[in-house]
Order: sequence, then C-alpha cells, then structure tokens
Amino acid sequence: MVAAGPEALADSLIAGDRRALARAITLIESTKAEDRARAEALVERLAPRAGSALRIAISGAPGVGKSTFIEAFGLHAVSQGRRVAVLAVDPSSPRSGGALLGDKTRMVELARTEGAFIRPSPSRGTLGGVHRRTRESILACEAAGFDLILVETVGVGQSETEAAGMVDAFLLLLAPGAGDELQGLKRGIVELADVVAVNKDDGELAAAARRMQSEYRAALHLLRPMHAEWQVPVLRCSALERKGIDSVWSATLRHCAAMEASGAFAARRAGQSKDWLWSELREGLVERFLADSRLKSRLARAEAKVAEGAIAPTAAARDLLAGFGKIGRGS
Amino acid sequence: MVAAGPEALADSLIAGDRRALARAITLIESTKAEDRARAEALVERLAPRAGSALRIAISGAPGVGKSTFIEAFGLHAVSQGRRVAVLAVDPSSPRSGGALLGDKTRMVELARTEGAFIRPSPSRGTLGGVHRRTRESILACEAAGFDLILVETVGVGQSETEAAGMVDAFLLLLAPGAGDELQGLKRGIVELADVVAVNKDDGELAAAARRMQSEYRAALHLLRPMHAEWQVPVLRCSALERKGIDSVWSATLRHCAAMEASGAFAARRAGQSKDWLWSELREGLVERFLADSRLKSRLARAEAKVAEGAIAPTAAARDLLAGFGKIGRGS
Repeated sequence: MVAAGPEALADSLIAGDRRALARAITLIESTKAEDRARAEALVERLAPRAGSALRIAISGAPGVGKSTFIEAFGLHAVSQGRRVAVLAVDPSSPRSGGALLGDKTRMVELARTEGAFIRPSPSRGTLGGVHRRTRESILACEAAGFDLILVETVGVGQSETEAAGMVDAFLLLLAPGAGDELQGLKRGIVELADVVAVNKDDGELAAAARRMQSEYRAALHLLRPMHAEWQVPVLRCSALERKGIDSVWSATLRHCAAMEASGAFAARRAGQSKDWLWSELREGLVERFLADSRLKSRLARAEAKVAEGAIAPTAAARDLLAGFGKIGRGS
Repeated sequence: MVAAGPEALADSLIAGDRRALARAITLIESTKAEDRARAEALVERLAPRAGSALRIAISGAPGVGKSTFIEAFGLHAVSQGRRVAVLAVDPSSPRSGGALLGDKTRMVELARTEGAFIRPSPSRGTLGGVHRRTRESILACEAAGFDLILVETVGVGQSETEAAGMVDAFLLLLAPGAGDELQGLKRGIVELADVVAVNKDDGELAAAARRMQSEYRAALHLLRPMHAEWQVPVLRCSALERKGIDSVWSATLRHCAAMEASGAFAARRAGQSKDWLWSELREGLVERFLADSRLKSRLARAEAKVAEGAIAPTAAARDLLAGFGKIGRGS
C-alpha cells in the first residue's frame, strides 16, 4: 500500500510533503505485521526531529460540539502563527474499521487552511488500536514541522486516560444539554482536565452555559488538591460564534507555562516516554505469549474458569506461564 | 517462618483458628521466592470456600479519622450479626518495611470484639507490594468464615484504583479540615466512590461538615452519569460520637442490593477475576523478563535514553524484546 521505503518517506515528510505525512501515519497505523518493521524504521528516523510541539488533548462527549470547537481553536492558533496538526479520532464502522464518510466533511475551513493538517483515523478500540500508535503519529506531525498537535478523543472509555498520557495539556469540553449532567462521560475524566471549557455559550443555551460554568467551578475547586501549581479554570465559549476561543487558548498556554516554570513539564514528558517504553514492553510480552495457539486456547478456558470462581487467578496464571516457558524453550 | 504445610494451615484456618488466618496472611504477603509456591497452594485450597462475603474498600486521606470510623463501622456491622475482617493498610517504615508500632493501638475496641479480625499490613508501595496480594488475603478471610471484609486504603497514589478493583463497594471518607478541599487526594478518587461520608460531624466542625456535605452532593450530582443505576449518596457521620454510622452502613448495603438487582454485582466480580488473572499474567511475564540480569542493565540504559529523547520507545522496546527472545531460547 505504501510504496516508498521508510527512509525516503521520512525524508519527504521532513521536507514538508503533506502526502508523505499522511502516508507515514497510514503506515504507522497499519496492523499488518510486515508494515510494523517499516513503521518502526520510519519513527526511528523521525524521532530526533520531534518533541518541540505543544501537545493538547481535546476531549468531550458526543454532542458537545467538539469538531466545531477544534476548527475554531485550530484557526485561532493558526492566526497566532502556529502550525496545527489535528489527530482526529473518529468513530469507526465496526464492519470496515474505516472512518465514517461523514467525518470527511468535518472542519472544512481548517482543512483548507495553509498551516493546518487534519488526519481523521478510525477509533479501533483500546487494545492495539489507534491509541497505541497515536504517540507515533504525534512524532510524525512534529517531524513534519507542526508545532501544535491537537489530539481529539471521544470522551468515553479508556481512551481518555491514554490520551492524557501523551499530551502536555488536557482540555475538556462540556456543553449544556438535556440535563446539566455529563451523560456517558467516563468516571474520572473531569479530574483529568487541565482546562475545562463550556461550549455553546450562545443563543438559548447561554444562560444554561453560565450556570454550568459556575457549578463546575465549585465542583473543581473541591476536587483539586489545595497546593497544586495550577487551579483548573472553567471557561465559557461558543465555537459556533467563535467567541471565547481566545481565552481558552491563552488559558491552555498559561497552564503549559506554569508547568514549565515548576519543572513539571519536562518531568511529565520524561515520565510519558518511560511509560510508553513500559507499555510497549508489556504489550510485546503479551503478544509473544498470545502468539502460541496452544496457549491461546488454554487462556480462554482459564478465563472462563476464573470468572466462574472454579480456580484462583494466581493458580491459573502460574499454569499458563509454566506452559509459556516450556513452549518458549522448546521452540 | 511459617512451619506448617500449606494444607494443614488451610485446614486450621477453615476450622476457625485465628492464628492460622494471621499466619496464612503472613505467608501470602511474604516476598520470599520459596514462600510463594506455598502461598499459592494455600490460596488454591482456600479459593473454593471464598466469595460469599461483602467486600468494601474504605478510603480517605490521612486525618479524616479513618481508624475511628472503621472501628465504629465494624462494631456496627458486628451488632448486625456480621463477622468482620479488616485488612488495614498501614504506612510502613521505609527502612524495615514493617508496620509502625503506633498502628497496634488502633481500633482497640474492635480488635477485642468477638467476631472481628484486624490485620494491619505495611503498605509497601504499588508494584508487587501488598496490593497485589490483598486479593488473596481477602480470600483467606472469607475462607475463615468472615462475611464482611473491610479493605482500608490510604487515599493517595495508585492504591485506590487497585482497591476499587477488588471490592463490591468503595466508601470514601472525607472530613472538614483546614480548608474545604481534598488535600493530597489523588485525582479521580472522588469519582471511584459508591458512597461518600463526611466524618467529624461533631462539635465545632458540625457546621463545616454540613456545608461540605451539600457541596459534595452538588459536585457528585454533576460528575455522575445521568442514567446510572446508583446515585452516590453523600452522608454525614461522627465516628467519634458513633453517630450516623448506621446510615452509612445501610447506604452501602443498598448500593450492593441495587447492583445485585441489575446484575452488575456478579458482572463486576467476574470482571475483577478476569482482571486479576491478566494482571498476574502481565506481572509474571515482566518478572521473567527482569529475571535476566543482562536485560536488567540494558533496560536501565534504555530507560535513560528514552527519557532524554535519544531513542524512540518503540525501538528501545523492540531491541529489548529481541534480546529476551534470544536469551529465553538459549537457556
């Protein structure tokens, strides 16, 4: 599917070729075994060029106006001289694994803007899916010269915690809706946020947005440690009317500046790299384990027995690991 | 240290011998390699007798009156006909790894009560420490006939999420203090709670406790999904004056009943067993990996290089895993 060698691809990408960047991300996201080695060679060549961008996760439940916000936010950043790459995580069709057609019409104005790059990718679930590779896509965008990376997440499931582990700032988008509650949002997500913005502060919803803002201000004031270096701001904006976007942008920059001043920024980055290494190691070990078809069927039986309480998980794990050792040595 | 064989120890424990239970937990918590196989044999024998108790985590930051609360809560449960085992996680001396002397004087009245068992254990940190084994200690207490297991956690760090993954209900204890904020509480902990209780609703703090209760009610109302089967109650109590303990107890029972009615209780237990199996598998695989001293020193170098950005984590992981494969096959 990707014809050029990883070195040539890397060089075109670094030279600023957008199609090379798009192809690089396709290679990075590929789940084919033969693509993985080439993707790793690519990332290895890109890594020394990466690391200087600001990485921001933008999270919010469906219906809060996330696409409209990202477009407005991205356009504002471009107007401030930033080069913006958006890694949009789109709901995938379970059948094809591909992005929905509708997504291609999102963020049209930003997509047309010089200095912006949008990459919609299907969200393939947690394990081994896009999120494991999103870190590599971030590096690719940075090597291509983008200095602001926006990582969109869908506000549900495990993805939020993973996204928070890849970025310098986590922006949570809310909107007044049917009720004043966070329908379907994952437990703990509000507490991940570095900046909270209540969107849809316009028209009939403006009063509800103001109410929501003050409620969340009170809630977050309670939830956050007293001596933290950063008090999470709860702002209002209207992505539709492009109102208040500048204050969300400057709050995000202030957060990053505060982190840098305290040394937390560099520490967070170093910790993230180490966590990434460990997650690759753990997943690699599990992959080796699962690569043996005999162990795979034994694992399924062990899982069922453990769930029904017929065997203790420790004993089941020990037996499975003993089998792994024998097979590993035997091969 | 533990003289009897694991089978004899299991039989005494099941027959109701308290000292056997204490020794079983000591064996379970032992980090000596030679004790592990015996601990597993023990747990294997106990597992079929376990599973019928209610498991409750009691969490709260230092200073909220956790010991006093657990004592009052445990005594109330005993008065309701329950047999109560408390797995208290105490701060450990970093030097000796042992429990502080002061802990032995905690919960004196409960300790003296027929039908209650208290086991203070040092909190040895996250990885491979007490929390990995606490699940096994829960099984041991259940096999010994206790039908209510209280797992104390310290309200900071990773331990909360792990504790929540072992219990049927998560009780968060708060108290009005210097400010109305959760000093030092971990991000996300409030959202783990199934029941919240504001302690120290007595004397000069009573007014502050009432204020705290209404603030947290509002905050939790916002933070929780709309259609959940359970709206987290925020209650007030005074462990010192033994006031309101009964309503915290009945709220906890109501939560468990609601979970049972919806099928969530059994699903949560089955999911926890499966998670436990997987965590044992992952830790076992990492242990095997780290058992090779050559890999260990290479890992340290890789971690440093990755943290300073000199090498991509994917590449570092691939190299390390390749080394593991060779060594594994060679041995």
